[in-house]
Amino acid sequence: MNKAVILLSGGLDSATVLALAKSRGFECHAISFDYGQRHRCELEAAERVAQVLGVAGHRIVQLGLDQIGGSALTDPDIAVPHEASAGIPVTYVPARNTVFLSLALGWAEVLGARDIFIGVNAVDYSGYPDCRPEYIGAFERLANLATRAGVEGDHFTIHAPLIRMSKAQIILEGVRLGLDYALTVSCYDPDPQGRACGRCDACRLRAAGFRDAALSDPTRYQ
Amino acid sequence: MNKAVILLSGGLDSATVLALAKSRGFECHAISFDYGQRHRCELEAAERVAQVLGVAGHRIVQLGLDQIGGSALTDPDIAVPHEASAGIPVTYVPARNTVFLSLALGWAEVLGARDIFIGVNAVDYSGYPDCRPEYIGAFERLANLATRAGVEGDHFTIHAPLIRMSKAQIILEGVRLGLDYALTVSCYDPDPQGRACGRCDACRLRAAGFRDAALSDPTRYQ
Repeated sequence: MNKAVILLSGGLDSATVLALAKSRGFECHAISFDYGQRHRCELEAAERVAQVLGVAGHRIVQLGLDQIGGSALTDPDIAVPHEASAGIPVTYVPARNTVFLSLALGWAEVLGARDIFIGVNAVDYSGYPDCRPEYIGAFERLANLATRAGVEGDHFTIHAPLIRMSKAQIILEGVRLGLDYALTVSCYDPDPQGRACGRCDACRLRAAGFRDAALSDPTRYQ
Repeated sequence: MNKAVILLSGGLDSATVLALAKSRGFECHAISFDYGQRHRCELEAAERVAQVLGVAGHRIVQLGLDQIGGSALTDPDIAVPHEASAGIPVTYVPARNTVFLSLALGWAEVLGARDIFIGVNAVDYSGYPDCRPEYIGAFERLANLATRAGVEGDHFTIHAPLIRMSKAQIILEGVRLGLDYALTVSCYDPDPQGRACGRCDACRLRAAGFRDAALSDPTRYQ
């Protein structure tokens, strides 16, 4: 059974990716990041999802992104916006997916996995530059130059199976695979009980996805 | 004055890179990583070097690479070899430079810096894949796809000024710039007083560099 490393945030997209990777027959190893994010209850969601879906291993890596700041998700002095904004929003965490993919790559090399799955999406997304297909392609090229395995001709593949799907298509795919979205948390600014604000970008995209899929939304709102 | 982010480990190479970047007129911001490395006294060396050379800022980012393991530098169960070995050695930390450059990129974006300096070297080096020119080029391409600044046409440059220099050439350049190498620590396996073992790869490369440069070696040995 081939091993794969799955970036698991505890949100809707990455849970769907884990369900997809399992359905394709991979032995799945999940990796999550504790990076000082405002929405830490997503780590509890990641643990629930990893447990219910059944992974071979799950690591939560500490990461001091608060030292770097610059995002509403990591700097308590920058508020999470509750309306849509033009351009790249303040929830953008500089170089986040590059940092996350790099750590996933390191773990994949240690495990002997050659497949890495990430739930980025270039359709119903927040306008982040590191969610685009050309970005994923550039990371895959880098991965094969950066590592012992790559140098020895053993190719790494970065899978972004949701990249061209709408949020509704993602949800329908997850439901088809039997995924219970009540396990997941998408909100950038949840309350201490983990209930979603219903107003941030992530909440709006999620709610619209359930609406477009004509499915009831299991999200717990404040 | 243009800002630059400098990866500063506390070793000989990165200290030379900082001196070089300063001599080229950059306002230098140093970044170091506390990643559970065996040779933590290099972080104290990084602080000394940053202070003596005079940087605009210095961040030490916590990074849980111990969750990933797979290297003699991060896993206490893997010994640091005291003899030269063939191929990529067990001190190789999977994807380390990719993780470090990603975090430097994130901080550069927050600071408004467009220049990142890294002290990798492809001549007198330990055989790590992420020290080669083609790797640095691939990371620069990735950086310009991954970031808000890159998307907006504001180009990032990854500088690896030592990449084609011998260890002796690096030392001679640092001495020319007035750098005191007694501030730096290279050893992978120092004792609790920060004194070098004199036998690991990093010690051997450093000692040979001073010998080839016909300079006295200020390293404190056990």
